[in-house]
Amino acid sequence: MRQVCVLGCGALGTVLSNLVVSNLPKLSGYNPKVMWYVRDEEHLQKRLVDVINTHRENKKYLPGVKISDNVLASDDAARVAAAADVILFAYATRHVTEILETVKGHLKKDVLFISFSKGLVAPEGKPQMSQADIWLVSEEIRRVTGVEAVVVSGAMTARGLAKGEFTEVTVGAISEQSAEETENLLLTWTADVATVEICGALKNILSVAAGIVDGLKLGANTKSAIIRLGLYEMGQYCHYMYGKYDTRQSTLLESCGVSELFKCMLRQSDLMPEVGDDWDIFNILIGRMLSEPEYSKLTVEQIEQSLHPDFVASGPDTAKKIYTQLSSMHLCERYPLFTAVHLICIRSLSSNMLIPMLSHHPAHM
Amino acid sequence: MRQVCVLGCGALGTVLSNLVVSNLPKLSGYNPKVMWYVRDEEHLQKRLVDVINTHRENKKYLPGVKISDNVLASDDAARVAAAADVILFAYATRHVTEILETVKGHLKKDVLFISFSKGLVAPEGKPQMSQADIWLVSEEIRRVTGVEAVVVSGAMTARGLAKGEFTEVTVGAISEQSAEETENLLLTWTADVATVEICGALKNILSVAAGIVDGLKLGANTKSAIIRLGLYEMGQYCHYMYGKYDTRQSTLLESCGVSELFKCMLRQSDLMPEVGDDWDIFNILIGRMLSEPEYSKLTVEQIEQSLHPDFVASGPDTAKKIYTQLSSMHLCERYPLFTAVHLICIRSLSSNMLIPMLSHHPAHM
Repeated sequence: MRQVCVLGCGALGTVLSNLVVSNLPKLSGYNPKVMWYVRDEEHLQKRLVDVINTHRENKKYLPGVKISDNVLASDDAARVAAAADVILFAYATRHVTEILETVKGHLKKDVLFISFSKGLVAPEGKPQMSQADIWLVSEEIRRVTGVEAVVVSGAMTARGLAKGEFTEVTVGAISEQSAEETENLLLTWTADVATVEICGALKNILSVAAGIVDGLKLGANTKSAIIRLGLYEMGQYCHYMYGKYDTRQSTLLESCGVSELFKCMLRQSDLMPEVGDDWDIFNILIGRMLSEPEYSKLTVEQIEQSLHPDFVASGPDTAKKIYTQLSSMHLCERYPLFTAVHLICIRSLSSNMLIPMLSHHPAHM
Repeated sequence: MRQVCVLGCGALGTVLSNLVVSNLPKLSGYNPKVMWYVRDEEHLQKRLVDVINTHRENKKYLPGVKISDNVLASDDAARVAAAADVILFAYATRHVTEILETVKGHLKKDVLFISFSKGLVAPEGKPQMSQADIWLVSEEIRRVTGVEAVVVSGAMTARGLAKGEFTEVTVGAISEQSAEETENLLLTWTADVATVEICGALKNILSVAAGIVDGLKLGANTKSAIIRLGLYEMGQYCHYMYGKYDTRQSTLLESCGVSELFKCMLRQSDLMPEVGDDWDIFNILIGRMLSEPEYSKLTVEQIEQSLHPDFVASGPDTAKKIYTQLSSMHLCERYPLFTAVHLICIRSLSSNMLIPMLSHHPAHM
């Protein structure tokens, strides 16, 4: 009996646990129960794992969604990892290395490791970064555990999945056998793992850019142009930095690329995110506030704090990593949008310089 | 002195007249005045051309935007066409053939003919259509007048242009010399004329699809998936039907492709379109009403009428043309989204069959 385990107690980890449990009975040779690692954190002075096991609900990250009795929450990461034939990995980028260090040495040799994490792993506070300093999550998984991960990205909100909405994702995997299909989750498989991951990380920068456009009160022409130029920079970045992995521009047309961006753009920036929902809107709001005069005295960290005391947005962080790398490599001119977003985030550039920064964009040469 | 003329008295024709007039002084060898053909139609019992020349405002199609004194409106199409060294052509698809028939024989042999028209020209009411029955606007221009047109498409609303918003478009042109750049209008040139035009036409079907998703109260995951599958069908259609023109999938990543779709998706379907603005929102609203129970007794024509007495939406019309062709060629299974939208428009299929129709989509094979 193969065992499926989920690592990650956020909204996505919660939904994935439920979703896979509902699909396991259709597969032969699988234990119908899912083991779920919920790290030792608190919700209203109680341990989250106890709250979940008592109430069958993740009251902290996905309130209102009932968790199946066949999902067994545990706070013992090593035990959960050791039991796993299949791991669904849904961790915020900043915790990726820490959890990998915890589970390494416990993993089965032939574990199927499926990562839903979006972002780039990089050292904190380093003023110069070369290509060697920035890691895809799949690279970090390989480095720490020796396992070759499958990566999943796409236009996929946790709430949408929880409702059983028709959802597409893109699976980046070296081997085709890793790609499976569930009833509501349509998977398009590609061997272009790097592009799948890059899109998932870099779209956070574009969400901030979209917010800046909103804050500047520019219209649909401009916002559409910005997002397309961002998609262009994504493709160029992927080709230039990860060409060794045989990246392909056509992957941008998969769910991990354009659909993810469509999804971000559908969000209304006048709404606060629901806790536990995905964070595109958080990035968009930060962008908007960065370009509104009444917040001009606030740093991006103060803006984040004002929106939510507990969370760190992925957009400014990703923009900073990418900028540090690009400037170390003297490549900023080729990526004026990524560059502008970072400089606006650190208040080195006024947000109304966004458009002038793009006036000689490489996409138009 | 080269003369620039504009054909088309809608919102886009109005803005183009103004925009080109503001840029002409920067170019040498051009008459600084633009001739603008405004066809013989009425606004509040007065001739539109007189209204425009008196009030310097297109009160019917773009109220509130002042028209430069250097734009000379005229109701004599033949005279305007005969004077033109450069024509900017912004006609609704259903009037394209009629106006071309009027101006043919009057055109200079080396006129630079730039078409902003989006859509497909096809015979009315024909139950079967082969590839030979459907014409790109550029093909129709060549057929009727013998001129090889340049085509322009992209995420470009007339109002956004009128405000001088940062806007990108894609220029499809056989020769590079035809592509020019203005300060606010950034042009990306491609020789892939067919894809530029196809995107402009087929996105109307996708706007209806987006509206259907709204009406069904499905969320961002589904809407993003639908739009991406539509983009996939666009690419397939273009490659299969217009491969003779050496189409390229990468053109989908230009403004004419993804940006146009981003722009459509940014629209809120709870707002009525402003008269004279572009018609994406009109298509989205029709889609929404097609899937809301309270309108289930209305035909798509009645829905159109209820929204606006004067206008015909391009989405259902394009869907019908494409469906007639696809079914004649036994290709419907390869284009389930285009097929579903048409069948929902003619009430042969319930809108909640949209998702099941896509469950074995070729993009997932």
